[in-house]
Amino acid sequence: MKRIMLVVAYEGTNYCGWQVQPNGVTIEGVLNEKLSELLGESILVTGASRTDSGVHSYGNVAVFDTDTRIPAEKIAYAVNQRLPEDIVVQRSLEVVSDFHPRHCNSKKTYEYRILNRKMPLPMLRRDTYFYHYPLDVSAMQQAADILVGEHDFKSFCSTATTAETTVRTIYSLDVTREGELITICVTGSGFLYNMVRIIAGTLIQIGAGIRKPEEIRAMLTACDRSAAGPTAPAHGLTMIGIEYENVENILKNC
Amino acid sequence: MKRIMLVVAYEGTNYCGWQVQPNGVTIEGVLNEKLSELLGESILVTGASRTDSGVHSYGNVAVFDTDTRIPAEKIAYAVNQRLPEDIVVQRSLEVVSDFHPRHCNSKKTYEYRILNRKMPLPMLRRDTYFYHYPLDVSAMQQAADILVGEHDFKSFCSTATTAETTVRTIYSLDVTREGELITICVTGSGFLYNMVRIIAGTLIQIGAGIRKPEEIRAMLTACDRSAAGPTAPAHGLTMIGIEYENVENILKNC
Repeated sequence: MKRIMLVVAYEGTNYCGWQVQPNGVTIEGVLNEKLSELLGESILVTGASRTDSGVHSYGNVAVFDTDTRIPAEKIAYAVNQRLPEDIVVQRSLEVVSDFHPRHCNSKKTYEYRILNRKMPLPMLRRDTYFYHYPLDVSAMQQAADILVGEHDFKSFCSTATTAETTVRTIYSLDVTREGELITICVTGSGFLYNMVRIIAGTLIQIGAGIRKPEEIRAMLTACDRSAAGPTAPAHGLTMIGIEYENVENILKNC
Repeated sequence: MKRIMLVVAYEGTNYCGWQVQPNGVTIEGVLNEKLSELLGESILVTGASRTDSGVHSYGNVAVFDTDTRIPAEKIAYAVNQRLPEDIVVQRSLEVVSDFHPRHCNSKKTYEYRILNRKMPLPMLRRDTYFYHYPLDVSAMQQAADILVGEHDFKSFCSTATTAETTVRTIYSLDVTREGELITICVTGSGFLYNMVRIIAGTLIQIGAGIRKPEEIRAMLTACDRSAAGPTAPAHGLTMIGIEYENVENILKNC
């Protein structure tokens, strides 16, 4: 028995999110099905980031156990032959048998992309949130700077959360503009339910001048979901990747 | 009666190209239908670039005549309410009554985008051509430089062409790499049937080392389609925009 780690890219548009559900097709469900077919065993993957419906990924992580003799690094190529074109395994490698993608210390990076112009662009409709009022990126960055560090992010968390603690650490939170595309890039120790989308929704309000950057402080101390801004639409969000601490202790035979 | 110019962006994935066809949905067909509905007249648009099935656009141009009292610049917003989300009119404006989008001197710009990495990325599958062998961008640029200028591009034209002359002028042809994305950006006086895709297919062969940059000269002089490389897939191609000469003589009331 060996444990395999997959790095998985997908377009979330046509899925009911990552996690297996009784109704609706999910990324996890499709991976389980296609890996089981390929390996001739019943495979159940465990994902690092259980992304919402409509959220995309360049590098989510999943692990599973298998008895296969297919070399670990070949599994990506083999399963891609079976996967639909909106899910592509980028890499497969063997990890130590006690590695868990959610219980190991890691830095997760997400991007929230906003198309800020007068008219929508068809080609970008699936992975950017179209917002046609002007946005002040420097005000958004001022607000973002206040969120960096360890805080209780209860105000920036869906009330549907089951998390034991709402304290999280944001390592960096950068708002940049390239022409008409604004990207909010956030790296943290982990994120609460809807946290990145609520941060994005709040920063958009600040960029639009509806709220002031310094109001972020009061939002944090309120520890109340209603203090922060709205949850920005899922399709603007992309999970970029996950960096594990002590990666040399995770990978096997490397 | 006034003549209206539309600047039209679309994702070509779900269309049988620009031009109305007996079978299959086309961009032109959808514009005719939705403009006719909106304006209560039978509208027939004339397009500048009759893009192939699967080709995208940020700024194709179409014109039509109408008796409507809707101000020219409002037509874009009004028709966008009726159009599917993969076609978005970016701008509408009144032009002089004898303006023809194909018979006026213009510079057209197209981009051919290549995703050059080991694994496909789902989010880019519709508007980049995935090519996993390494490509030498400087060899591609060397070859591209030879194509710039006025030439007989018969070798770079589908044999199905109906063009009277196969002489065209390329003003610029730049091959750039940003990370894993290679962009071939070409501006010309006009392009023959499949010309940009054949240039892209040929440059890819050169980038892959299958042919040498200087072979381009012999391809040009051959005036024979079989001398050049293959036609690269349509979905990597995007019509970027059209710049008309003497634009001040085209626009009305500006």
